[in-house]
Amino acid sequence: MIRIGIFGATGYTGLELLKLLGRHPASRIAWLTSENSAGQQFGDIFPVPPALGGHTLIPSAEADCAGVDVVFCCLPHVAAQTHVAAARETGARVIDLSADFRLRDAATYEKWYGHPHQHAELLGEAVYGLPELRRSEIAGASLIANPGCYPTSVILGLAPLARAGWLAGTIIADSKSGVSGAGRTPSLKTHFVEANENLSPYSIGRTHRHLPEMEQELGISEHLHPPAGAVSANQRIIFSPHLVPINRGMLSTIYSTLPEGVTEGQVREAYAAMYAVEPFVYLLPKGQVATFAHTANTNYCAIGLTFVPDTSTLIVTSSIDNLGKGASGQAVQNMNAMFGFAESTGLM
Amino acid sequence: MIRIGIFGATGYTGLELLKLLGRHPASRIAWLTSENSAGQQFGDIFPVPPALGGHTLIPSAEADCAGVDVVFCCLPHVAAQTHVAAARETGARVIDLSADFRLRDAATYEKWYGHPHQHAELLGEAVYGLPELRRSEIAGASLIANPGCYPTSVILGLAPLARAGWLAGTIIADSKSGVSGAGRTPSLKTHFVEANENLSPYSIGRTHRHLPEMEQELGISEHLHPPAGAVSANQRIIFSPHLVPINRGMLSTIYSTLPEGVTEGQVREAYAAMYAVEPFVYLLPKGQVATFAHTANTNYCAIGLTFVPDTSTLIVTSSIDNLGKGASGQAVQNMNAMFGFAESTGLM
Amino acid sequence: MIRIGIFGATGYTGLELLKLLGRHPASRIAWLTSENSAGQQFGDIFPVPPALGGHTLIPSAEADCAGVDVVFCCLPHVAAQTHVAAARETGARVIDLSADFRLRDAATYEKWYGHPHQHAELLGEAVYGLPELRRSEIAGASLIANPGCYPTSVILGLAPLARAGWLAGTIIADSKSGVSGAGRTPSLKTHFVEANENLSPYSIGRTHRHLPEMEQELGISEHLHPPAGAVSANQRIIFSPHLVPINRGMLSTIYSTLPEGVTEGQVREAYAAMYAVEPFVYLLPKGQVATFAHTANTNYCAIGLTFVPDTSTLIVTSSIDNLGKGASGQAVQNMNAMFGFAESTGLM
Amino acid sequence: MIRIGIFGATGYTGLELLKLLGRHPASRIAWLTSENSAGQQFGDIFPVPPALGGHTLIPSAEADCAGVDVVFCCLPHVAAQTHVAAARETGARVIDLSADFRLRDAATYEKWYGHPHQHAELLGEAVYGLPELRRSEIAGASLIANPGCYPTSVILGLAPLARAGWLAGTIIADSKSGVSGAGRTPSLKTHFVEANENLSPYSIGRTHRHLPEMEQELGISEHLHPPAGAVSANQRIIFSPHLVPINRGMLSTIYSTLPEGVTEGQVREAYAAMYAVEPFVYLLPKGQVATFAHTANTNYCAIGLTFVPDTSTLIVTSSIDNLGKGASGQAVQNMNAMFGFAESTGLM
Repeated sequence: MIRIGIFGATGYTGLELLKLLGRHPASRIAWLTSENSAGQQFGDIFPVPPALGGHTLIPSAEADCAGVDVVFCCLPHVAAQTHVAAARETGARVIDLSADFRLRDAATYEKWYGHPHQHAELLGEAVYGLPELRRSEIAGASLIANPGCYPTSVILGLAPLARAGWLAGTIIADSKSGVSGAGRTPSLKTHFVEANENLSPYSIGRTHRHLPEMEQELGISEHLHPPAGAVSANQRIIFSPHLVPINRGMLSTIYSTLPEGVTEGQVREAYAAMYAVEPFVYLLPKGQVATFAHTANTNYCAIGLTFVPDTSTLIVTSSIDNLGKGASGQAVQNMNAMFGFAESTGLM
Repeated sequence: MIRIGIFGATGYTGLELLKLLGRHPASRIAWLTSENSAGQQFGDIFPVPPALGGHTLIPSAEADCAGVDVVFCCLPHVAAQTHVAAARETGARVIDLSADFRLRDAATYEKWYGHPHQHAELLGEAVYGLPELRRSEIAGASLIANPGCYPTSVILGLAPLARAGWLAGTIIADSKSGVSGAGRTPSLKTHFVEANENLSPYSIGRTHRHLPEMEQELGISEHLHPPAGAVSANQRIIFSPHLVPINRGMLSTIYSTLPEGVTEGQVREAYAAMYAVEPFVYLLPKGQVATFAHTANTNYCAIGLTFVPDTSTLIVTSSIDNLGKGASGQAVQNMNAMFGFAESTGLM
Repeated sequence: MIRIGIFGATGYTGLELLKLLGRHPASRIAWLTSENSAGQQFGDIFPVPPALGGHTLIPSAEADCAGVDVVFCCLPHVAAQTHVAAARETGARVIDLSADFRLRDAATYEKWYGHPHQHAELLGEAVYGLPELRRSEIAGASLIANPGCYPTSVILGLAPLARAGWLAGTIIADSKSGVSGAGRTPSLKTHFVEANENLSPYSIGRTHRHLPEMEQELGISEHLHPPAGAVSANQRIIFSPHLVPINRGMLSTIYSTLPEGVTEGQVREAYAAMYAVEPFVYLLPKGQVATFAHTANTNYCAIGLTFVPDTSTLIVTSSIDNLGKGASGQAVQNMNAMFGFAESTGLM
Repeated sequence: MIRIGIFGATGYTGLELLKLLGRHPASRIAWLTSENSAGQQFGDIFPVPPALGGHTLIPSAEADCAGVDVVFCCLPHVAAQTHVAAARETGARVIDLSADFRLRDAATYEKWYGHPHQHAELLGEAVYGLPELRRSEIAGASLIANPGCYPTSVILGLAPLARAGWLAGTIIADSKSGVSGAGRTPSLKTHFVEANENLSPYSIGRTHRHLPEMEQELGISEHLHPPAGAVSANQRIIFSPHLVPINRGMLSTIYSTLPEGVTEGQVREAYAAMYAVEPFVYLLPKGQVATFAHTANTNYCAIGLTFVPDTSTLIVTSSIDNLGKGASGQAVQNMNAMFGFAESTGLM
């Protein structure tokens, strides 16, 4: 039985985590924290059935990290750093869903997040928790940096190209996300009347904070520590997120120019080879494109490959559920890998 | 040319008003106020085309009420009272879209809104701005209390019964509203992810503040000043609003028990007689029910009558657009009546 | 291990059933039928992951009823009769999700469905599969008539009143349903542009086919076979379904007049007593109303009780997921009861 | 007064046209055709107010083209050809909303639409009805090929670059469209439950029929007849439409590589110069991107320009309402230009 604590349980990733863990045969919730709602029950915060609603929220100061096997941190970045560090000091293994430990380089973190990292000493032990790229490191990790939702969809969509050394030039990732990715704090942008019947690009170009994370893991340009096998060159991602009036789901439509001589057959084979063994990534048959519906309410990533005739352009459509493979589902997959369970335990 | 000032222009009723007035052949916007956004342009607040976006917002302290013919007040209740009173002192005619001047009785106001009315001296001159009931008073009015959205749909749905004296016992109004009725201030209830794919009853029974307004105008029970012809008896409305994941629109499904001996034919005739002359209320053919689509983006109210065989129950379905006939459209209709224009000017 | 066959697997109830059974620890899919899509794989029909998509659809003529333990019938009414009868002849136990075996009286069936029942001889053995009312009969049943979605929400909302003999007069059930309840066959009514940003009442009054089913199980008026303890009197349900632009979910707002002398405390106690032991019905705390969100993607029914002060009106808000407790979830709950599993197996 | 006939009035473009013409001060509807609904009233087809609903639909065989000044053809392609030709024979001026007369080259038409053009003799007189590009030709035109929705958003987004000779290499247009663009005929793709909470790419790459239309008007590659000033080179558009769960609206996110030496300032100036005089195209301030909300329910096109630092990539966000500037609004704008009215008459 894995004893579990969750920091910051009252957001959408916390809710999803609790639902998933409720189906997991070997997990036991020890505590849930919330500063604002301490003393209340989980069922006071979300309209959930009694089985989930009975947990009492505690302030993080009362969280017993030493008494659990793993701590999930669902706090926003910055706030996460302190709590992750405190949990690590007690020896608890940590899965952090924030962005705080995803970038390996403290200077890159400071550049993109606008303030110095408070616990750069932990960056070395943090493992980027994308099992498809870093399975062996995850098993023994003490600190998992759970990937961002956009990066998960883009990295999985491009990883076979990166491994083969076929990323080149400017890659365009035009991504569409459901609104739950923006969190549960009310704002004008996520106000129903503003978001509904609307579709908005935002932070397009090379300005969104998820960009360096993608480029790091794909071994691109200025970012550090490419994974084994990745080839660095003059590549660059232009990343354009769009908010769409849907609760959950994410699709990245990715445009990549293949190096001369690389054929459709080779590319299909590279994707098939990499993902055939994966429990949660599946390749669509030729002629099909990925849609939100392919992965809604699951931990899957679905990938479609479209080759544009008479050009060297490959269009990858990569779909995930932003709260599933894009956040809490992936966190549970990581937990499974860390504790010796089949990765799909509780996730099918 | 009617010179126009608008207090509190940065909410959805202000936006809708500006759009409607932009099509009105005889209106000229003199000023728009906003305390929070003073100095900004309307186009900084809403994604509107340049023709609408160029208006500069001013603080209400700088609003020149004496220099306009009519002031629309789109402020929330309480805040509205002060500005309406100030505008009236300059002699400007006022159309107030808040609830502050809808209830004729200051004690009833205090009971439902939880604080004493600050300008009860104006209640006497205020006219409830539902042209179908009070057309003659509106023409000469100096202060119009523009009806609430729910009351508009329920009152128009029941007025022919009230006039005929056929309201009796408990009437149930089960209403469904789009989210724009809740305003533009972000909240958890109107957060996209919470409202989307959800449907929520709220303030059901006899607790919603729009209830006394309905009963007042229908001449029901404890409320004062029934309109001429209304019959007061042991009637009572049970009113259950529901929030639905739609931007704009409203439907009231109303269940009323007809007095013994009143026939379907008589009832249809009463509705037809009352609404045949109305430019903005139309009766659906037998066998049809009103839907949101019947009135979306218009100033119409559509009414369907369904008689339940072997019972004395009449089901009225009454549809309006909550920002049209339920707010800004009706306000323009009132303005037209006040200034001698055809009521439909700029609204077709 | 329960071996399972499904007739008519390519609708939304079939899809949901397959998803639920995929999580059930003791079920094994033996075959799925589809006349139109025979020979195709399930993944050709729905965008599902490979684990679900690999099942091959067969024509019903090839279905081996004798080789399975239970047959789920997801065909529309009329078509269901033939296949249910054929399956019963092989001795297989059957859970029929259509309306064909819900009404005990063949004449009532003919009146509401417009044609004679072809297998009235099976009506006697059919058990209305609402575990909260008929648990003991379900355990030993050979043929389960799985309840309709609207009836489930209304019957569970009123059953404690029916048992106590507190139903009286006209009861109004104003119900709101997501669009998946209308099935997967394209039509103008369910065309995206027509349904989206719209809300439509339909078949209101006493015309919808789910009405006799509700009244039968609540022991009301002309319908036969009230459950033990139910009291028949001059009651009558007026039922008004509304289509709302949501994929799945259902809420019934039910207005019932309590007999004189019955107190709020007594009513709350009756509900609490009946549902305290139920794994899938939960009562909301005083002051709360049920919403779609309370039960989305679950097999729960959530019930709120609102008493209207100074009246004898009780408003029951009863929420289910129309594909969960309203169809496939309930079917699995019935299967569990029939085969000696805990009812919640695979459903939490 | 312009006398108007409409072929095929019962689709969404017909409905929108009728609404717009209802506000036009100088238009008079003479007849509306529908083969399937001949004899019915417009109000039997759509839930519209009596003012619009009273028109009786006639079969096209009864349409009097000689008796009107202009014929709008809202039929699907192929069907449109016959009716346009017949109308032209009577001398009536025609605005065709189908794709049949948009491509100047009959062979290109046959290649993309899969069958020979039946009235290629009319291609020479047809004018592509995008006023921003072909205003002078439109004024005197007898046959207007009203542009497609996607082409309108992409062409207006790129026209200043084309004029300046700054289009080069592969241009990527990632477009998102509301569902009304797919028409009113029910299908699984546009079934509410399938489209809602989903987002689907389709016909991506170089396969969608709107592609040649874009390239023709932008003077690109193999297509004929570039407009005056356009520069042809090795350009090519990769076009990826996506269906989003919204009724109406369209956004194209366009990625274009600027030639070396072309500066942000020069590009902004080119756009400003071309669109400053346009009544229906507006440029957003630096730092802003276009969203669906910028143009919903209007005839506007809103354009945002985002330059990606340290690259030569320009991202154009171009928003229109697919039924406004993308179809019926543009058709009315063309009518105004043809008959000597200000282009914005009835459209503000």
